Amino acid sequence: MTYCVGIRIAAGLVLLSDTRTNAGIDNISRFKKMFTFEAPGERVMAMMVAGNLSITQGVVSLLKSQIQRAETDPAIPSILTVATMTEVVQLVAAALSEMQHRHRSTLIAYGVAADASILVAGQRRGGRHRLFLIYSAGNFIEATEDTAFLQIGELKYGKPILDRLITPDTAIDEAVKAACVSMDSTIRSNLSVGLPLDIAVIRTGELRFALRRRIAFDDEPYTRISSGWSDSLRQAFQGLPALPID
Amino acid sequence: MTYCVGIRIAAGLVLLSDTRTNAGIDNISRFKKMFTFEAPGERVMAMMVAGNLSITQGVVSLLKSQIQRAETDPAIPSILTVATMTEVVQLVAAALSEMQHRHRSTLIAYGVAADASILVAGQRRGGRHRLFLIYSAGNFIEATEDTAFLQIGELKYGKPILDRLITPDTAIDEAVKAACVSMDSTIRSNLSVGLPLDIAVIRTGELRFALRRRIAFDDEPYTRISSGWSDSLRQAFQGLPALPID
Repeated sequence: MTYCVGIRIAAGLVLLSDTRTNAGIDNISRFKKMFTFEAPGERVMAMMVAGNLSITQGVVSLLKSQIQRAETDPAIPSILTVATMTEVVQLVAAALSEMQHRHRSTLIAYGVAADASILVAGQRRGGRHRLFLIYSAGNFIEATEDTAFLQIGELKYGKPILDRLITPDTAIDEAVKAACVSMDSTIRSNLSVGLPLDIAVIRTGELRFALRRRIAFDDEPYTRISSGWSDSLRQAFQGLPALPID
Repeated sequence: MTYCVGIRIAAGLVLLSDTRTNAGIDNISRFKKMFTFEAPGERVMAMMVAGNLSITQGVVSLLKSQIQRAETDPAIPSILTVATMTEVVQLVAAALSEMQHRHRSTLIAYGVAADASILVAGQRRGGRHRLFLIYSAGNFIEATEDTAFLQIGELKYGKPILDRLITPDTAIDEAVKAACVSMDSTIRSNLSVGLPLDIAVIRTGELRFALRRRIAFDDEPYTRISSGWSDSLRQAFQGLPALPID
């Protein structure tokens, strides 16, 4: 499985993904699920993927090949050259549909789903910072004021804490903490989501990554959040009033 | 949907269920999902159901009719008269299979699943307090020292908090609080789970219900837990260290 969360608040975009993939429960590997693209001052974007790994890797490779070909042939659209974030998302969705079209019939013959979903977040010069979720069918939705986060993969374990903590006015470092706590809850409840993680932060209007790094097993700031949260939860719980029994 | 949780700790059994059912998202009703049976000093049991409502209501009605018929004909096994909790669970599972057998083919013709799952918890005189989960296929598992809780229905939202809080040594009033907090998280994240709730508590060896009541919308102790938890979580979260950005 996979857990990826994208948070869109007034202050910017926060993206966090795990790296665990599994084919069955006895074949577990580590693959990057976050892909970043940056042309500082011009545009900054990140993609996070869930679902069939061969499909999502194919999507990324198709998008990268478009970027390369666009360098010599400006007629070829690429996610680094199209005018708007909507067009970026349309290109990603088209790449997803193309990969599924290539492989779906043979995958189905093997009883394997070609399903995948993709979060796309970013900002281009002159545009707003935006967050999209592309469904497996290639249709997509965009986060609005009313939906400050979007998730893909194993999303339920980590949703309650985001429902409680994230609003459009949340500060960017609070949103980073909330994403970490949401991921930590998911990792504790589901073996198929695991460290290391990839995190990226884009502050509104900066058109570059404020943070883009891997969170490894021994990452001290992350470990402090994870164990601090465990301790605080226990304390908070002990401070709750009881429901009288008899 | 439904969310039911059963907690089995050394001190006893805690059971909590919601009451919301839906056929589609525009047809929402309220149905009891917890059914209790008590012969004080002899045996005390509770069942919680999830899945196709016609099937689970049929199961309860079959079990109640067995209880009635057993009063005049001791040859008829009923959940109040069979010797062990295992035999109780076997009777419940058999009732489930019978109801599914009666209705599955017609239900499938209408594109409706006959699936259901049932939690059974209780203690009989001379036996341990036990907690079982009956799957839709009629097979079942029992909670052990290593699994202090079992859930049915919309279980993921409320699982992280139980994973963190419940051990076999948890006190009974802490387990009640944990069940309430787990339910509260689920209700906040999933519209199809909702108040009122039914709660039951059985202390080990007492062979009667220590608590068995409905938690309504305006229930003060529950509201204090729910709002107290929201406040504590926010405080706990604010106290967490930050993950440095730039």
